[in-house]
Amino acid sequence: MSDMPAAPRPEARAPRGFSDRRGAGALAEQRIVQTLARVYERWGFEPLETGAFEYADALGKFLPDADRPNEGVFALQDDDDQWMALRYDLTAPLARFVAQHRETLPRPYRRYAYGPVWRNEKPGPGRYREFWQCDADTVGSDRPEADAEIVAMALEGLAALGLGTGEAVVRIASRKLVNGVLQAAGVEGAAQTLTVLRAIDKLDRLGPEGVTLLLGEGRLDESGDFTRGAGLSTAGVEAVLAFLAVPAEGPRSAVLDALDPIVGATPAGAEGLADLARIDAALKAFGVGAEARFDPAVVRGLEYYTGAVFESELVADTRDDRGRPVRFGSIVGGGRYDGLVARFTGEDVPATGASFGVSRLAAALRAASLDRTAEARGPVVVICFADSDMGAYLEAAAELRGAGIAAEVYLGRAGMKAQMKYADRRGAPAVVILGGDELAAGQVTLKDLDAGRAAATGIADHEAWKAARPGQVTVPRGELVAAVRHILE
Amino acid sequence: MSDMPAAPRPEARAPRGFSDRRGAGALAEQRIVQTLARVYERWGFEPLETGAFEYADALGKFLPDADRPNEGVFALQDDDDQWMALRYDLTAPLARFVAQHRETLPRPYRRYAYGPVWRNEKPGPGRYREFWQCDADTVGSDRPEADAEIVAMALEGLAALGLGTGEAVVRIASRKLVNGVLQAAGVEGAAQTLTVLRAIDKLDRLGPEGVTLLLGEGRLDESGDFTRGAGLSTAGVEAVLAFLAVPAEGPRSAVLDALDPIVGATPAGAEGLADLARIDAALKAFGVGAEARFDPAVVRGLEYYTGAVFESELVADTRDDRGRPVRFGSIVGGGRYDGLVARFTGEDVPATGASFGVSRLAAALRAASLDRTAEARGPVVVICFADSDMGAYLEAAAELRGAGIAAEVYLGRAGMKAQMKYADRRGAPAVVILGGDELAAGQVTLKDLDAGRAAATGIADHEAWKAARPGQVTVPRGELVAAVRHILE
Repeated sequence: MSDMPAAPRPEARAPRGFSDRRGAGALAEQRIVQTLARVYERWGFEPLETGAFEYADALGKFLPDADRPNEGVFALQDDDDQWMALRYDLTAPLARFVAQHRETLPRPYRRYAYGPVWRNEKPGPGRYREFWQCDADTVGSDRPEADAEIVAMALEGLAALGLGTGEAVVRIASRKLVNGVLQAAGVEGAAQTLTVLRAIDKLDRLGPEGVTLLLGEGRLDESGDFTRGAGLSTAGVEAVLAFLAVPAEGPRSAVLDALDPIVGATPAGAEGLADLARIDAALKAFGVGAEARFDPAVVRGLEYYTGAVFESELVADTRDDRGRPVRFGSIVGGGRYDGLVARFTGEDVPATGASFGVSRLAAALRAASLDRTAEARGPVVVICFADSDMGAYLEAAAELRGAGIAAEVYLGRAGMKAQMKYADRRGAPAVVILGGDELAAGQVTLKDLDAGRAAATGIADHEAWKAARPGQVTVPRGELVAAVRHILE
Repeated sequence: MSDMPAAPRPEARAPRGFSDRRGAGALAEQRIVQTLARVYERWGFEPLETGAFEYADALGKFLPDADRPNEGVFALQDDDDQWMALRYDLTAPLARFVAQHRETLPRPYRRYAYGPVWRNEKPGPGRYREFWQCDADTVGSDRPEADAEIVAMALEGLAALGLGTGEAVVRIASRKLVNGVLQAAGVEGAAQTLTVLRAIDKLDRLGPEGVTLLLGEGRLDESGDFTRGAGLSTAGVEAVLAFLAVPAEGPRSAVLDALDPIVGATPAGAEGLADLARIDAALKAFGVGAEARFDPAVVRGLEYYTGAVFESELVADTRDDRGRPVRFGSIVGGGRYDGLVARFTGEDVPATGASFGVSRLAAALRAASLDRTAEARGPVVVICFADSDMGAYLEAAAELRGAGIAAEVYLGRAGMKAQMKYADRRGAPAVVILGGDELAAGQVTLKDLDAGRAAATGIADHEAWKAARPGQVTVPRGELVAAVRHILE
């Protein structure tokens, strides 16, 4: 290589919208997916790994066209001219997989999956083009109990990560109830339905007044733009608003009682209420209390879902690095969707599932001071003084590892001061010193870095520090493991 | 949606060269990377997650050009016209990351990483375009002890997965020793060096006779094609062949003694022997015996590596599904490479590392009957008879899960026979029967599916089977967990 002309040096940078996570940040995501996977397995869900690519036609939503092949997804054309695209979620590959193997899969098919998904969108601060999801879905069960399982698993997953009762709630609604209120309000046809759904979706932002206008004649916003309304009658508007105003507090059965006079007389509404009653009963059987609530105002993805929908809300006290309160959006959400497999087979297959946003969950755990990996310690570092004593250093590190303690010998070429700084950067709980004196005396010196740091703040000057040697202890070499264990505890 | 014209139905299939893994197959790969990660962490390596994409110029080897942007990698052009490509290994992203953050990273920087890598190659049977790797690298240490650590970790990782002493060995060579023999043989310049390295690389395939021809004047193969040789003198050819003929058996120090007269007099050879002596000493300190061997004939990737190189060899008895012996190539390999970061910074940074092929390792463990996930059981399945008793079924499953036993209620709509088939397909160890009789009597019936299958083979007809009810037991409902535990043990 040295004979070749030098190529221009590329700049070392990650592509826009892609993030690197090292150390504790990477461990936090590992811990989340592994914890959720164990919960899913306990509920009888098995793992599925599909490839990063799907054929673009199988992804459906984002079919590339000649002018804009990258609309929303990362797409490229294969050697045989077929368009492939990186998956933008874990549900589309599941639908393809189930359609492909429907003859041989157990039915219901219960699977979990986790991994990166990709969105070809404009990157921005905190907006990434690659992020991890962790999903569980039941395909082939139309029973509301399958929905209840998904909700209970989501709560169990949050609890296993530290967000137990009082830290997170899941709010559940139903597309069928919305269909009921649409029937009660006299809504007809796909276009009017869509307009009403979009109006409902703006409740958070515009309040009941704004939604009233959008359900009726229309709304003039502050910039002077006019949005045409759905054109409902006054009674229709009132029915929708009464539906959305049902309070989500109190027992789940009380919410159903309050909804009954509004939607119970319509076929879809009656069906939705019956489903939710079964979900309520199943949640009770699972021991799920007030952390799962019925809330008609949850209108997440109603255009997509066909039955129950739900999303989580974080109740925990979450604060940023400077201690200021921060709010997190939904960390896990999902619902029932029956049309996904039908795209391939023509046959509606009932399915229900949930998706965790792993990166957002990691950020939320950090903000709630529940990120246990943040306290994860680095290895014990054995200081390297003389090449000739390397065997002694390596054996000490091996002995610690043999006792299950993460340990390494410093293998750079720097002096003692830089090695202590290295140990500090690695988050080492202790350093092991086997200098000439120690080796001659059959001893080992340990520095407890935490104790040293704590003590150092109370010591006046360097001479006093040297005399006191806080957090430092010399023991017989045979007591290495026991002494390190003592520091770790 | 129902008002819209029907779109043509896409065919449900994965893109060519991409595989789906479900259940035990996916669990096996999860177990591998998690087991290796724990080994790496014990050795003081921290995780790094980088994105799937790198800028093509940062990947280096496979710079896309206008005509063939996809040569070897999956590449696409971003909105801002920059070429991005999916990573083809985990080393190139590491080099980019280290170059980007060299001011703030601890040094040496010890990191592990795992995940999919992508190669845009022609797919074939068993040849995938996406597969998982699991790497560990130390960047910033020129000490041979860092190489020894990588070898010892690789062996410890294999052992943690069941491939302990006697099942796998690692063979270690050194580019410096090869440089020594090149010096001894009078090889000069990059072109002649490359020709000699390629000749050595063919030892396995062509034997010493073929390599002799390729080192000398050249070789005429069976199809009549002539390959020009390196043009070494007879003494030069003999030196190279003597080097390759040093037996790899016996203690590591004996191999060094045998190599000394061949390469010890050259500067590069002397340096290589000194490095390997230190690696030998370090391996001894780690307690690594004959499972790590010195073998000059290992010529893996010598064009790339700058110091020690190594690869694993599986010694375990490996057999395919029909019991026929199968051989696996190297499952883990690596070495020292000092030029990777220099592509970005101009500064050589010493680095050494190893890469596990996760999919090949999974296949090898399966073939060696060491895939513990193959025996992993599915959930206990609670049979669903009557909707009105659903609460009792759900509570039973929840009770089992609460005791740490994977369990689910069958949530399809099929009858008893199909439910038993479902439980069988899921690999359920047992089914729980809470029929009307059981519920009325405060009892529960359990079927031990393994015992049932075993007994059924010895029973003459269906009537006899019904009378004997092998593997079936009815116990008080309060003993559900204990009785299931009994079956599981």
